[in-house]
Amino acid sequence: MHYPESFSELVEYLKLLPGVGRRGAERIALAMIEWDGGQLRSFGELLAGLPERIGKCPRCGALADGGELCRICSDPRRDVSQICVVENMTQLAAVEKGNYFRGVYLVLGGRLSPLDGEDGSSLNIPLLRERASQPETKEVILALSSDVEGRATAAFLAELLAGFPVKLSRPALGLPAGANLSYADGATIAAAFSNRTDMQ
Amino acid sequence: MHYPESFSELVEYLKLLPGVGRRGAERIALAMIEWDGGQLRSFGELLAGLPERIGKCPRCGALADGGELCRICSDPRRDVSQICVVENMTQLAAVEKGNYFRGVYLVLGGRLSPLDGEDGSSLNIPLLRERASQPETKEVILALSSDVEGRATAAFLAELLAGFPVKLSRPALGLPAGANLSYADGATIAAAFSNRTDMQ
Repeated sequence: MHYPESFSELVEYLKLLPGVGRRGAERIALAMIEWDGGQLRSFGELLAGLPERIGKCPRCGALADGGELCRICSDPRRDVSQICVVENMTQLAAVEKGNYFRGVYLVLGGRLSPLDGEDGSSLNIPLLRERASQPETKEVILALSSDVEGRATAAFLAELLAGFPVKLSRPALGLPAGANLSYADGATIAAAFSNRTDMQ
Repeated sequence: MHYPESFSELVEYLKLLPGVGRRGAERIALAMIEWDGGQLRSFGELLAGLPERIGKCPRCGALADGGELCRICSDPRRDVSQICVVENMTQLAAVEKGNYFRGVYLVLGGRLSPLDGEDGSSLNIPLLRERASQPETKEVILALSSDVEGRATAAFLAELLAGFPVKLSRPALGLPAGANLSYADGATIAAAFSNRTDMQ
């Protein structure tokens, strides 16, 4: 009412961002209109051009420049015999941060979640089957979350891939690096003890 | 590194928003690229067009459609004899929410803050002097924050306006509506008691 039309439109868009409510959107909008005009214009042009510029990698489902392979699939140093299945790009980024895994990915695009109506039909399962059936694929690492839905999804995928000539694995459960034992929950302690490693 | 170029550019822009760090920016960017292409495009066009569409009201300094009076200054039902001085648009919005004040505003665009190098030279003080000297102006309400810098700014403005034939006032200090007395701080209690109102 006391804001000009264009400002209200800006607030409506900002309210669509995750974790941003009306007050946050107004605060962000007030800051954005203080930006230099050229900066606002180039941000706007970037957003307007995104649908053309960004897409999904046809080999793994990760984000990629439109119509191209993603940076990992197009890197010849990556080992295509190992495929790490993750739920989304955030998890892919987390695995990459570990700086250990040198294989390639398959981004599922979600996980089984019956309560949210996700029965697997919108997941990248056809792509996973296709990749698992290719002769270069030796191992599929199911790096899903270790909560209930993540484990259900891993179990579902394990069953689905049972007939393929690939090794199936999942990351070890145990204590986080640098963690204090007294803050670990019972399930983590149990997993860490049952998977204890020899020190000799 | 594992994100496409356009995605990284998006994250860099989002990091400029207030209260958004690297992780928040990535989370927002991942959500935005799931938006429908048309929506991204129209948001982008809105941003790119903002520098032309949005401006400051020449009468009060509030946000306005480019080159025009703001919604309040252009509303003939508002009482131009009362000018409420606020620091910024957020405070203007707060006063409007009270749904009590029917006068007009002057948006200072900040407040005196020697530690941040704000000595008043970038504030809308020339506009305030001009408005205060106009014959229709009867009262100036200094609705600044009641913290140290707000009070210093109000004192500075009061001195500045002392020579003008206008009444100067400020909002009453007291207990917030609906508040429990036991949570009020000492300064608020003291103000509420010294300004107590008669109940007969």
